[in-house]
Amino acid sequence: MSITLYELAAADPAIRFSPYVWRTRFCLLHKGLAFKGVPWRFTEKDALAPTGQGRVPAIVDHARGDRWVHDSWQIATYLDETHSDRPAIMANDAERASGRLTAVWAETAVHGAAMPLIIGNLFAHLDPKDQPYFRQSREERFGRTLEQIAVEPKAGVAALKNALAPAEAALAVSPFLSGSAPGYADYALAGSLIWIWITAPVLPIDPETAVGRWYETMLDLYDGHARKAKLMR
Amino acid sequence: MSITLYELAAADPAIRFSPYVWRTRFCLLHKGLAFKGVPWRFTEKDALAPTGQGRVPAIVDHARGDRWVHDSWQIATYLDETHSDRPAIMANDAERASGRLTAVWAETAVHGAAMPLIIGNLFAHLDPKDQPYFRQSREERFGRTLEQIAVEPKAGVAALKNALAPAEAALAVSPFLSGSAPGYADYALAGSLIWIWITAPVLPIDPETAVGRWYETMLDLYDGHARKAKLMR
Repeated sequence: MSITLYELAAADPAIRFSPYVWRTRFCLLHKGLAFKGVPWRFTEKDALAPTGQGRVPAIVDHARGDRWVHDSWQIATYLDETHSDRPAIMANDAERASGRLTAVWAETAVHGAAMPLIIGNLFAHLDPKDQPYFRQSREERFGRTLEQIAVEPKAGVAALKNALAPAEAALAVSPFLSGSAPGYADYALAGSLIWIWITAPVLPIDPETAVGRWYETMLDLYDGHARKAKLMR
Repeated sequence: MSITLYELAAADPAIRFSPYVWRTRFCLLHKGLAFKGVPWRFTEKDALAPTGQGRVPAIVDHARGDRWVHDSWQIATYLDETHSDRPAIMANDAERASGRLTAVWAETAVHGAAMPLIIGNLFAHLDPKDQPYFRQSREERFGRTLEQIAVEPKAGVAALKNALAPAEAALAVSPFLSGSAPGYADYALAGSLIWIWITAPVLPIDPETAVGRWYETMLDLYDGHARKAKLMR
């Protein structure tokens, strides 16, 4: 394998649920680069020491002197720069702008809307050694207990659908967020929705929407790669 | 003039503050089509009867048999279809997708964050005949009185800056949201920010940000067209 990818895993190491790691998976598939995913837990900061920080995705590019790169956006731009003979993830300013706007919108609006739906089920499936870290960091961020953040699935699914309105509008006029073929904007939102799909206690995405139909297409890409993801239900 | 544009106006008819109308102004300038703006108030539904609804922007295309078109997105696609000899506002699926995503994100996240900042000043400058309609419709929508929705300017400016994070990220990697030149995604967000700039009680956009620098560029476009807007302060 030319690239090692560190991936956030649940108690079951086959469950790989980070939205940011899924973005990187799609970018590696887009470039046609072989990679091996390595399970990693929130509390294993030492394993990422060469990156100077403690979060995934992080990759090691064995064909480039075992170079480490971290952060889903930095990895995407790195892959385009160093593997420029392969299909570009982002070919121009327009694709960079829509990629970044979509990614940060998904991280804020979509993740914020999804968190109450998924947080209980997600916490229950974490590796026990990660649970105290997860509880403390999320309760600090939200100023409430995990139990107070959580909502009934029906309310959570409705809030998520509402938050997806910008993508619903875009996918009503274009097959992909990036245009006629998938690109970084699609991988960014798909990463978020795969995270929600894996961690939610119920099926979270309405299949009768433009987003739902696009999501099925995203699961089909690259020989149905994401469709094989192991779920927390 | 080849096109008449109905525009939401304040008590002072020279103040034209609708974000959706500003999108259409930019689209008309992008196409190089001459137009004449006509002031319109919220309660003048009869003036728009040919559109079958009661909101602006609405245009009358005198070069096409006095055809009426309404809704900022429908007008943009109409202008591209019927004036295809002029520069395209959106040339492909990618531009349509990023245009729609940016527009609906701006309408929800950016407008939602800005409303508490602007609503008091905006209400005070409305035509008196529009004030009862505005109060009732907005209080129904938010479930609170205008006075309860309003916040101190400092808190409102901070909330707006926070809501603009997706655009800030995009404009850190690209000169325009549409890439190397302005397009519908830029006109969509600029329309929202011009609305806020006109109606806020203080300068609402931090000039030391990527969004602030891009906003100055948007005001400079088309001979500084938007820079001439009359403000509510």
